Amino acid sequence: MSVDDEAGAAHHGYIGDKARYAQRMRRIEGQARGVARMIEEEQYCIDILTQISALTAALQNVALGLLDDHLGHCVVDAVRAGEDGGAAKLAEASAAIARLVKS
Amino acid sequence: MSVDDEAGAAHHGYIGDKARYAQRMRRIEGQARGVARMIEEEQYCIDILTQISALTAALQNVALGLLDDHLGHCVVDAVRAGEDGGAAKLAEASAAIARLVKS
Amino acid sequence: MSVDDEAGAAHHGYIGDKARYAQRMRRIEGQARGVARMIEEEQYCIDILTQISALTAALQNVALGLLDDHLGHCVVDAVRAGEDGGAAKLAEASAAIARLVKS
Amino acid sequence: MSVDDEAGAAHHGYIGDKARYAQRMRRIEGQARGVARMIEEEQYCIDILTQISALTAALQNVALGLLDDHLGHCVVDAVRAGEDGGAAKLAEASAAIARLVKS
Repeated sequence: MSVDDEAGAAHHGYIGDKARYAQRMRRIEGQARGVARMIEEEQYCIDILTQISALTAALQNVALGLLDDHLGHCVVDAVRAGEDGGAAKLAEASAAIARLVKS
Repeated sequence: MSVDDEAGAAHHGYIGDKARYAQRMRRIEGQARGVARMIEEEQYCIDILTQISALTAALQNVALGLLDDHLGHCVVDAVRAGEDGGAAKLAEASAAIARLVKS
Repeated sequence: MSVDDEAGAAHHGYIGDKARYAQRMRRIEGQARGVARMIEEEQYCIDILTQISALTAALQNVALGLLDDHLGHCVVDAVRAGEDGGAAKLAEASAAIARLVKS
Repeated sequence: MSVDDEAGAAHHGYIGDKARYAQRMRRIEGQARGVARMIEEEQYCIDILTQISALTAALQNVALGLLDDHLGHCVVDAVRAGEDGGAAKLAEASAAIARLVKS
């Protein structure tokens, strides 16, 4: 469960770049479809692995961009406004960072 | 460029499980589409990051499965048959492993 | 170059747990020494790789702990006090997170 | 438990480069000691994180080198000689690769 505020969406850091992020994910979706096709066409393993490494790197970059926006907007807003000084948002962000580092 | 043999596809390690791997990649494609939609719907950043971590882990598992099959088939065959004792295939596999570890 | 403030050290988030972090790094140092010894004693490769994976995970956990403290102290303080709303500290933290995710 | 052969050590792939690997691990040990000292001296968090990222990358490179040697020696020997065609060694190597990718 996310510690989101009710008003919610309007504050999400990535909103300004929403179209750009969505487009990057659509491209990643296309890359995943491409890998599925490579497998169906019995292409060479190593070439498939190369595509998967590229896909993983692209996903990490989207995640790092979203996280940077999140820290700079949601977390900063919570630090300034929150009665707990943003502690809940920070704990949530740290947990997300740990998942990214370990995945 | 891959060090593939001409006869090629028939030896690829993953072929026996082709349908299963292709299906897993189709599911990953669906997850990527889901993330794109979450962004378009302005869902909460942290929830999106959680999905991306899950997606990355799923991709890694596909890659590790393909790699295991590749080592057990293509590389083993090359070690047995190749005039170079499979050295080219091994170097290629090691490079793919390095890309996975670093991505 | 770090965007540290002059007064500096006294605000570092991890200071309260300094002894604990230093102790964890001393244990990691000991593990690294153990791996060097395993190599010198020509122990089995796979056992050495297992130790290196454990070492890497231990290092990541130290880094994630330090980062969490850093966000909750240095970055929060900068957000509250800084004329730039902590933007420089946030950019610096994001760059450190990217290095951790990609390493 | 490792699936090592009895005669053992003499076949380990990395033996030829033993001194070089041991030296790299000694350097990593020194880097870990340096990080412990940075913490004791209350140096800046981000600088410590930068050192930890470098340390992690250095460890990965040692692991990838050892793994490459292991595949090219122990695993190749087992494929050629083993009654099971090296299957046990390959399964063991795949498990080690998975631990590296996920750590």
